[in-house]
Amino acid sequence: MTNDSPETRMTLAKAAAREVARLTSAQKADALNAIADALVANAATIVAANGDDVERGRRNGIGDALLDRLSLDDERIVALAEATREVAALPDPVGEVIRGHRLANGINLEQVRVPFGVVGAIYEARPNVTVDIGALALRSGNTVVLRGGSAAKSSNMALVAIMRDALATQGITPEAIQTVDEFGRDGAKALMRGRGLIDVLVPRGSANLIETVVTESTVPVIETGAGNVHVVLDSTAPDDWAVDITVNSKTQRISVCNAAESVLVLRDAAERLVGPVVAALQERGVTVHGDDTVQTLAQGIVPATEDDWSTEYQSLDIAMRVVDSLDEALDHIDRYSTHHTETIVTTDVRNAERFLAEVDSAAVYVNTSTRFTDGGEYGFGAEVGISTQKLHARGPMGLPELTSTKWLGRGSGQIR
Amino acid sequence: MTNDSPETRMTLAKAAAREVARLTSAQKADALNAIADALVANAATIVAANGDDVERGRRNGIGDALLDRLSLDDERIVALAEATREVAALPDPVGEVIRGHRLANGINLEQVRVPFGVVGAIYEARPNVTVDIGALALRSGNTVVLRGGSAAKSSNMALVAIMRDALATQGITPEAIQTVDEFGRDGAKALMRGRGLIDVLVPRGSANLIETVVTESTVPVIETGAGNVHVVLDSTAPDDWAVDITVNSKTQRISVCNAAESVLVLRDAAERLVGPVVAALQERGVTVHGDDTVQTLAQGIVPATEDDWSTEYQSLDIAMRVVDSLDEALDHIDRYSTHHTETIVTTDVRNAERFLAEVDSAAVYVNTSTRFTDGGEYGFGAEVGISTQKLHARGPMGLPELTSTKWLGRGSGQIR
Repeated sequence: MTNDSPETRMTLAKAAAREVARLTSAQKADALNAIADALVANAATIVAANGDDVERGRRNGIGDALLDRLSLDDERIVALAEATREVAALPDPVGEVIRGHRLANGINLEQVRVPFGVVGAIYEARPNVTVDIGALALRSGNTVVLRGGSAAKSSNMALVAIMRDALATQGITPEAIQTVDEFGRDGAKALMRGRGLIDVLVPRGSANLIETVVTESTVPVIETGAGNVHVVLDSTAPDDWAVDITVNSKTQRISVCNAAESVLVLRDAAERLVGPVVAALQERGVTVHGDDTVQTLAQGIVPATEDDWSTEYQSLDIAMRVVDSLDEALDHIDRYSTHHTETIVTTDVRNAERFLAEVDSAAVYVNTSTRFTDGGEYGFGAEVGISTQKLHARGPMGLPELTSTKWLGRGSGQIR
Repeated sequence: MTNDSPETRMTLAKAAAREVARLTSAQKADALNAIADALVANAATIVAANGDDVERGRRNGIGDALLDRLSLDDERIVALAEATREVAALPDPVGEVIRGHRLANGINLEQVRVPFGVVGAIYEARPNVTVDIGALALRSGNTVVLRGGSAAKSSNMALVAIMRDALATQGITPEAIQTVDEFGRDGAKALMRGRGLIDVLVPRGSANLIETVVTESTVPVIETGAGNVHVVLDSTAPDDWAVDITVNSKTQRISVCNAAESVLVLRDAAERLVGPVVAALQERGVTVHGDDTVQTLAQGIVPATEDDWSTEYQSLDIAMRVVDSLDEALDHIDRYSTHHTETIVTTDVRNAERFLAEVDSAAVYVNTSTRFTDGGEYGFGAEVGISTQKLHARGPMGLPELTSTKWLGRGSGQIR
């Protein structure tokens, strides 16, 4: 690559967008399969580049969890290739006719799905996201400009080079996949200020990173947010569902955004439910941060502070509070939730329907685990992220959420 | 009103959003009809308040066109009330089930349409927009925080007070309609920085106003943009369609965003079409700004400069250029268009389909006037604006575009 600025890279991506938008579904699938083959064939190169990142990370003391997310080995590269093949096999959203009708004057009007054009992505030191977002963008007919964390710079540059070469072997312009990693912070800034060149920006990572991008970007952003997720145990909650749904929502996988972080127990049911639910959580190693009532009803409770209600632990911790009424539970959620996912355990249809109607979150459930808010579980095949904003996409995003629409009108001389 | 800051007003709107989201379609229609009645009943108050604005405007020399947009009289107030009744009669988008299926584990999953919550609007000195946006927001279950141009401050305050009183008579919280007009620029700034309080911000007005809002807002924006709209006359364009569609697109109404501003003529057809098209335009008082070839083929042409290709005249002016090929036309559009609406006049199906596929604009037509890009023409009943962004909404926006969605899951104890 002989480009010399983030703006040049973005301009190349924009120029390539018209060609990529016109690729057939089969051409895009072939290209993705070629990328998958190339990843496996070049595994040694990728592992070597990744080794540089890992060594630098270790020297900088970035911690075991981050080091694990950063590391690539042959097995992980095969998994990345496999995921790319799965994206290749997904239905192409481009060209879908969403609505259409014939106007009174005879014009045939239809709204069709089209690629955004150029997707920008800002994310942290996880090289798998480089391939993941690249594949999803290409499948949906978009070009992409990537900015990964600087800690994964060598890995990302190697991965992007391999993906670009694979595109070229398929007769597709390699400019469809760009990185601005080598420009450091300037690369991220250019993406956020890339109005006219970047059609949509997807931040993936910590709440801090997302907040920065949302605040600083003049390009439209799809916010994939954090999850301060609530389980409400209604007065009528059956014992087994209360225990199973709380335990599953908290412990089935603790580091994800759809894991529960708070339990609200209706006072009528507190004496019956708090003991067994706390015991089941503690059995799985969970620390319960409870209010005064919870502390009187169970052993081994850490007193909850105001901070606990708004903390997304992503660990074996959960906050628990006894509330006087469903109204108080709804108010608590309104105040502390990140509006990702909430669930209520109840057999009272009035409370179930009130909860579904009044909780303003991307996903609202009755009598299910919160862990179902997931593109795979919803049957989307792949997941671009889980949007917690209300514009364009809300909840799990599949490939169609990486597209826009346009209106086509076919007439025969109609005028107004 | 005893509120004392834009933040208080936004907080009140946010607090009212839960109540307004739960109103039934009939309640919202009744409220809008009550607003329409109140506007007519209080016409004298409105006209008096408007008189202050008009007098101030005249003193400040704001010009006849702006004065006309600013002025309200009994007749215009009756028209505003009528428009409000029409919004009341529109189908309620809230509650529509967009998709749904039963997961393999038995959870019933559906995606339903819900209000955004709080809609913010920043617009210029047109008091009719105050009522218009207020009505559209309420019909779609949203509360609204309005910031109109300071030149219309007295009118807007009077209109908002009347709308709020009308809501109260219907037992609906008046806090659903807020204005931050009396806080001047601080009101607009607060709206643009109102993350967590404002769910979506709609700027309406000049390109400058929209650019400022898009650049400075940390709240998601729906951009309703300007239209540098193109008519392409292909080699095969029939004479009558070429003349009729160009003339209609330019002159049927000159001050609107879907009016044509540039004509591109394929060289093969230039000798046949430029003369008659220019003559028909000139007959209607249009000044044609043409390139060298156009100047040799017709009389009375003003030489076009580079600026003409990117100018949205909104006047009896049009730019005209002869291009060598459809590719050159597509490149010109790609470079200069605001991606609002473009049309081609052709009988060649290959060029028609290429144009539809490759032009990246909100509306792309074959053999129709550009004037059809309009919510009313599309059959939406009302128009919130015409979006030229690709996120969330593109092209004419109806009531559904003022809503978000959420996922509802009904289960019976399902866990992962």
